[in-house]
Amino acid sequence: MTASVFDHPILSGLLGDDEIGAQFSAAAELSAMLRFEVALAEAEAAEGLIPGEAAAAITLLQEHFVADLDALKLSIGRDGVVIPDLVRQWRAALGEHGTHLHFGATSQDAIDTGLMLRLASVLSTIDQRLAVIIAALDGLDGRLGTQPLMGRTRMQAAIPITVSDRLGSWKGPVVVQRAAVRDMLQAGLSLQFGGAAGTLEKLGDKAVPVRLRLSEILKLSDRPQWHSQRAVIAEIGGLFSQITGSLGKIGQDLALMADNGTAVIGGGGASSAMPHKRNPVKAEVLVTLARFNAVQISGLHQALVHEQERSGAAWTLEWMILPQMAIATGAATRLAGDLLQSIERLGER
Amino acid sequence: MTASVFDHPILSGLLGDDEIGAQFSAAAELSAMLRFEVALAEAEAAEGLIPGEAAAAITLLQEHFVADLDALKLSIGRDGVVIPDLVRQWRAALGEHGTHLHFGATSQDAIDTGLMLRLASVLSTIDQRLAVIIAALDGLDGRLGTQPLMGRTRMQAAIPITVSDRLGSWKGPVVVQRAAVRDMLQAGLSLQFGGAAGTLEKLGDKAVPVRLRLSEILKLSDRPQWHSQRAVIAEIGGLFSQITGSLGKIGQDLALMADNGTAVIGGGGASSAMPHKRNPVKAEVLVTLARFNAVQISGLHQALVHEQERSGAAWTLEWMILPQMAIATGAATRLAGDLLQSIERLGER
Amino acid sequence: MTASVFDHPILSGLLGDDEIGAQFSAAAELSAMLRFEVALAEAEAAEGLIPGEAAAAITLLQEHFVADLDALKLSIGRDGVVIPDLVRQWRAALGEHGTHLHFGATSQDAIDTGLMLRLASVLSTIDQRLAVIIAALDGLDGRLGTQPLMGRTRMQAAIPITVSDRLGSWKGPVVVQRAAVRDMLQAGLSLQFGGAAGTLEKLGDKAVPVRLRLSEILKLSDRPQWHSQRAVIAEIGGLFSQITGSLGKIGQDLALMADNGTAVIGGGGASSAMPHKRNPVKAEVLVTLARFNAVQISGLHQALVHEQERSGAAWTLEWMILPQMAIATGAATRLAGDLLQSIERLGER
Amino acid sequence: MTASVFDHPILSGLLGDDEIGAQFSAAAELSAMLRFEVALAEAEAAEGLIPGEAAAAITLLQEHFVADLDALKLSIGRDGVVIPDLVRQWRAALGEHGTHLHFGATSQDAIDTGLMLRLASVLSTIDQRLAVIIAALDGLDGRLGTQPLMGRTRMQAAIPITVSDRLGSWKGPVVVQRAAVRDMLQAGLSLQFGGAAGTLEKLGDKAVPVRLRLSEILKLSDRPQWHSQRAVIAEIGGLFSQITGSLGKIGQDLALMADNGTAVIGGGGASSAMPHKRNPVKAEVLVTLARFNAVQISGLHQALVHEQERSGAAWTLEWMILPQMAIATGAATRLAGDLLQSIERLGER
Repeated sequence: MTASVFDHPILSGLLGDDEIGAQFSAAAELSAMLRFEVALAEAEAAEGLIPGEAAAAITLLQEHFVADLDALKLSIGRDGVVIPDLVRQWRAALGEHGTHLHFGATSQDAIDTGLMLRLASVLSTIDQRLAVIIAALDGLDGRLGTQPLMGRTRMQAAIPITVSDRLGSWKGPVVVQRAAVRDMLQAGLSLQFGGAAGTLEKLGDKAVPVRLRLSEILKLSDRPQWHSQRAVIAEIGGLFSQITGSLGKIGQDLALMADNGTAVIGGGGASSAMPHKRNPVKAEVLVTLARFNAVQISGLHQALVHEQERSGAAWTLEWMILPQMAIATGAATRLAGDLLQSIERLGER
Repeated sequence: MTASVFDHPILSGLLGDDEIGAQFSAAAELSAMLRFEVALAEAEAAEGLIPGEAAAAITLLQEHFVADLDALKLSIGRDGVVIPDLVRQWRAALGEHGTHLHFGATSQDAIDTGLMLRLASVLSTIDQRLAVIIAALDGLDGRLGTQPLMGRTRMQAAIPITVSDRLGSWKGPVVVQRAAVRDMLQAGLSLQFGGAAGTLEKLGDKAVPVRLRLSEILKLSDRPQWHSQRAVIAEIGGLFSQITGSLGKIGQDLALMADNGTAVIGGGGASSAMPHKRNPVKAEVLVTLARFNAVQISGLHQALVHEQERSGAAWTLEWMILPQMAIATGAATRLAGDLLQSIERLGER
Repeated sequence: MTASVFDHPILSGLLGDDEIGAQFSAAAELSAMLRFEVALAEAEAAEGLIPGEAAAAITLLQEHFVADLDALKLSIGRDGVVIPDLVRQWRAALGEHGTHLHFGATSQDAIDTGLMLRLASVLSTIDQRLAVIIAALDGLDGRLGTQPLMGRTRMQAAIPITVSDRLGSWKGPVVVQRAAVRDMLQAGLSLQFGGAAGTLEKLGDKAVPVRLRLSEILKLSDRPQWHSQRAVIAEIGGLFSQITGSLGKIGQDLALMADNGTAVIGGGGASSAMPHKRNPVKAEVLVTLARFNAVQISGLHQALVHEQERSGAAWTLEWMILPQMAIATGAATRLAGDLLQSIERLGER
Repeated sequence: MTASVFDHPILSGLLGDDEIGAQFSAAAELSAMLRFEVALAEAEAAEGLIPGEAAAAITLLQEHFVADLDALKLSIGRDGVVIPDLVRQWRAALGEHGTHLHFGATSQDAIDTGLMLRLASVLSTIDQRLAVIIAALDGLDGRLGTQPLMGRTRMQAAIPITVSDRLGSWKGPVVVQRAAVRDMLQAGLSLQFGGAAGTLEKLGDKAVPVRLRLSEILKLSDRPQWHSQRAVIAEIGGLFSQITGSLGKIGQDLALMADNGTAVIGGGGASSAMPHKRNPVKAEVLVTLARFNAVQISGLHQALVHEQERSGAAWTLEWMILPQMAIATGAATRLAGDLLQSIERLGER
């Protein structure tokens, strides 16, 4: 147990996700925010708002800039966001070109856009994992689908079905949710760019052209700023929780099937008191992750009540919740893939 | 205060919604389930599974059948669902044709489909209400949009914006969510039809043709059964909560604006201790409804862990939550429309 | 399905609770608020703040006053609380004595105190129900406790235990929670009395003596006003949810035991498609009610962020949630008692 | 942003808590579990169940044992709990005495007891922090209590009160919650000791004496095992969330007061776009932490549905939630203390 199981040196072996977790390291975050600043400089130089050589210097930050994390940690206790001090550090590293960095932008532009860049990677990984799960389900269907299984409704034997019938009910929502992930990626996650209070007031008539260029450079979707319009976040979190919910249903079913003997799962876990046992650990943990995300989604919807032009309170709440939902979804997709591949038998004995 | 504010003879004057609430009366529910049975009989007769005259007799139930509510109430304490006794009552009313009613179907088919029929009406109403809200926002923008307003971030004055800027941030998500409502209606809500354990085993090779006819008659979307695949419900609930969240943000902003004098709202509420006050009741209640739905959405995601072919526990949880979310959304759309129309002034004094 | 299953003419047969539900009718609510006003008048007359004959007239309202519900419903859409119009109606009924009613009080005093009076009845009923459950568990232990049962951990057979061991784990938290209910009743629920902004400014040096008398008359606990200090409500809701959680664990275990044959429960529910089945409906519904309250408790904790001297938004949220949690707890205690009494066999076959 | 803000190298500067966070490091966790094993060996030796020299050897583990974290991380992906491999490592380090370690115990005994030992430290820290907050409120009352303040109800000016009145409504719940923390500490947190399936079957008639000795050594409360009775955890989480809720109300009020000029707070945060601003960051974050815990508490109540003798799914959910609630409470108490001490002025200008 630690603040978060996802970061825990031991528990992350069960509940963590190295690939998706990597998108939420401080390094990944700082790097993504710098990508925003570099792209912004490039777009602003193209529109003549800042000198080309300033943009070039800003681009080079990606190669040599090393953040002073202690200063950032100290500053955030005062500022509530990392950007003011980070901009100070970046500008110090830039020297004379410094004033051209972050021109017309606000903290939220860099932070939200940086998040979207990383979420695009996260969704891409989840897309691949869901493909693995679908393939595993198809494989099981081909191998074991015709086996008889007692259909069970309201926790009681109902009428005979086949293993294929149950596999179908597992696969259905995963297919739908994978399509939703792909649609989201194809439409492009949303660029955030609005300036101090959402009006891009410093860019004058170049505001919309710069925003469009910025979205193209970053491969994000161009749209007006959404500083206080947070359904974007709730939507992504909702999809994460739908995925963990669908996988949690599979886990719950497999735990019940392992218990009543209609599933044999290889490689179950040991018990300190009962060495003979083989626990369906991954199946149980899928239920855990589903219930975890089902709890968290409430917080992202609470954060929709985002007052005025920017709410520190509501925005910070997103930071506390969304990364964990993403990693929980990563862990669930990883565990579900492993679990399905370790199934040795399905159906009545 | 009563079990539910939505049903309360007094509080429903503030928090209820007559139009949407009507879709969740027992009468509406029984009527929608009978529509399912009538359409099923029609489809099954067309496919030669039951006699045409049985279908005709079943259709006539809509004109003369009166449910024995006391018997239904008694039965549900034992059966957990209303359908077994309701089928018994319908069959008794049908006499010899009775055996042809509900052929091949299960409780969940009638209940879920009945719900979808009513949700289609609910969404249609919400679509209209959102149109009213958008028009009201456009009207305010035309009338007051150029007024100056101090942009406020993190609860502090930031830089000057206009009323139009803030109105834009209110309107953005409402437009997106209205489009989502309309997309959902256009795609058609999902027919539920799977039989005892999801396999439509009694219909043989007529299963798919009957299901297709059924969907056409009921103007629902044809798809395989989703007895244990409940993301359908979480998705609808998520949209409801996104809508109340967007309107809650408007309410929170207007309450703050009424407090600092940048909004004047007509017709505020009285206080028993301070007759001089004019409380921004509708603005506050929009926040309440947003937080309420943000709490409830968690329950619909918990219900995604729906074990085996049908979970009594998870399904019943949906019954306790989704209708209230729908009515909360109805109340919020109604109140937001009223509130926006009662705005007398926006912007700095 | 209706706004609330608790108020539903059919579903309340399963999920409702007549006895506890009655405390949340509009009639019970109006009556409890009038009890507050009568007691206030009595206390204020005793302290010489209002004439004794005014207090006598106010007391008589309990015999003859009939509220105009339509006017109340209309008013609440404007005022957000029922008291301003209800005070108007009461005063109209009192004629010349009217000005002495509600002297120095505010809406929240009458509404919160009225709620506490009804919650005292609710808790008293729950105390009795928990006693029935404990007795039923003791009875099962005496009758079946020595039967062997396979202990199960992580959804797998572990080592043999006895039925008595499992019954002990069911009983433990119920005993603790019953003690908490009794402690709460013995300490007395909290009187609410603070006036317009919590300072009882109209009562001068009689404020504390009147409050003390009021608490004695109403058998509530005397304490300074808690208009914006809502942990009182979260605490009661937390206890409700702990109770439904403990009973939900019993339900979950019994559903699993009915499935694997280590429990035989009499009187299970029928299925519309499979007349042979006997579903463990009450066991499942205990799980539903536990998860429902586990969702709702979040809302009462959100309502702790109650701004300034009184938050319409946060307070109204409590109205939407607490009554349902109380009735869910009532239903769970009722169903658990029934379920335990219908157990025919426990232990391995 | 990272998996958890509490572990984040930057964001923890705002949202983390070094002192309480330290109780949730892997090192603290391993150390606390070893304390359990050492105390168990001591108690079992005293009752003649294991040799005294084995107990002595086990005690020495505290001085020289170094866990192989990589092996633990690997094992947990298979076992779902850390103890099987940790016992293996401990036993390997003990050599011949190894078989006497963990005698009669199960994973949950070591993990839950280890948690309770650390929570005792956490609660002790929170007790001290709440004392600081109460003292700060008393200090403000002495310094500024007589200043006039407009009482505000439903987000509107109501009647004049004093700063002291508002400070009193902030202090009330903090005093009650501090008393609850102290009561919990004085009663002693609960020892967990039940063996494989809760029956301590390997200890025979020494089970109760060993458990009593164990509780005395560890300064925990003796009680029968609560493997599947998790209200203990929900109760602690509920108290955490009540504390953050009370402090969140203070934060919300101060943010509103800073906005309308009735509070001047020193040392606010900077903005990257608007260097002139001074944001009430700590006040906002208190709201965030309150809403975060209000979301999380739902998960601990969901985990009350803990099936059979031990639920891997429900128990793991606690691990994901409770540590974060503890640290959020730590952060809130730290920030509230700082914030109150930085107040320069309160009351009308």
